[in-house]
Amino acid sequence: MNKRGMLIILSGPSGSGKGTIVQQLLSERDDTVLSISATTRSPRTGEQDGVHYYFKTREEFEKLIESGELLEYAEYNGNYYGTPAEPIERYLADGKNVILEIEVQGAEKVMDRQQPDVVSIFITIPSLTELERRLRQRGTETEDSIEQRLKIARHELSRAFRYDYVVLNDEVPLAVERIHTIISAESMRYSRMENYILEVINNA
Amino acid sequence: MNKRGMLIILSGPSGSGKGTIVQQLLSERDDTVLSISATTRSPRTGEQDGVHYYFKTREEFEKLIESGELLEYAEYNGNYYGTPAEPIERYLADGKNVILEIEVQGAEKVMDRQQPDVVSIFITIPSLTELERRLRQRGTETEDSIEQRLKIARHELSRAFRYDYVVLNDEVPLAVERIHTIISAESMRYSRMENYILEVINNA
Repeated sequence: MNKRGMLIILSGPSGSGKGTIVQQLLSERDDTVLSISATTRSPRTGEQDGVHYYFKTREEFEKLIESGELLEYAEYNGNYYGTPAEPIERYLADGKNVILEIEVQGAEKVMDRQQPDVVSIFITIPSLTELERRLRQRGTETEDSIEQRLKIARHELSRAFRYDYVVLNDEVPLAVERIHTIISAESMRYSRMENYILEVINNA
Repeated sequence: MNKRGMLIILSGPSGSGKGTIVQQLLSERDDTVLSISATTRSPRTGEQDGVHYYFKTREEFEKLIESGELLEYAEYNGNYYGTPAEPIERYLADGKNVILEIEVQGAEKVMDRQQPDVVSIFITIPSLTELERRLRQRGTETEDSIEQRLKIARHELSRAFRYDYVVLNDEVPLAVERIHTIISAESMRYSRMENYILEVINNA
């Protein structure tokens, strides 16, 4: 019997390293795929429809909104971005886990939908001092934008209570290992073992 | 800061191997102890108070019942057996995990108290045929008692929905490994990481 997959919401402050963690995790698991966003912005060179994004017209996107087909959406710089439910549902039914790497506000919108099969993970940095160090290391941020990002990070940390798990990203391989552990444990949840138990009961 | 421990309820049908699993698990973790039962039965040769059981007079035991000091209790063959809350609370506060290895009925009584910090695990056998084989292997069971045990096991399996996790005991080392995984994941639950997050927020 095919076990349904889980929808893994992975979020955390900008600079927490969630993108790097997700790429590493995906390279180590063939039972897990990344959710692809829909957007109305134009494809950049090399970007493929259905690989990097689902590219939509504004009209198409607004139809998705009206039909409730999006788990969450937002508008940035005049373009829509959102998470279509249908491809995720197809993967879950097929027994694949789906990772939704998403910023903190979007993550909360998805959690508000109270879907089943969701496992939510908040990635935290070891300290705000460390976050500041990482932002400075990029060399692309102004003093003002560093200040601003730290303020946002502090607020986002205060929203961690919305998540099932908190994973510390002190070192990427350790953080990835912690997520493997969470996925293994979650696959033993009663709800995911119910069919197994029913088989044991019914096949004397 | 000392993290509170978790109370791990470990139950499952007779013959599921929970006793063997617990002994192996305890030998591999120094952050985890076994809960000790209270009883009114007399100590057998070699049994020590506070090690194998807390030995109580009937009067003492009934005082524990009245004061609500027991997480669960039952009477077998004219003797009381029960789980005192106070030593467990002391260990949890000290950051130790406590394993409560208990039969299915007792486990439900503990879960009915809806304590915080509880992680409940149901150990299942791969099949009832395999359970029958294990019971026959003991060589001490009559046909009638084997029939009876299988019937009880089937009923107990139908109560697995009360537990957070289901762990398959196909091989003891694998089952032990699965429980380590659950404990690791549970230590990353938001409730157990809250103090960490608060420290990150407050120590700029």
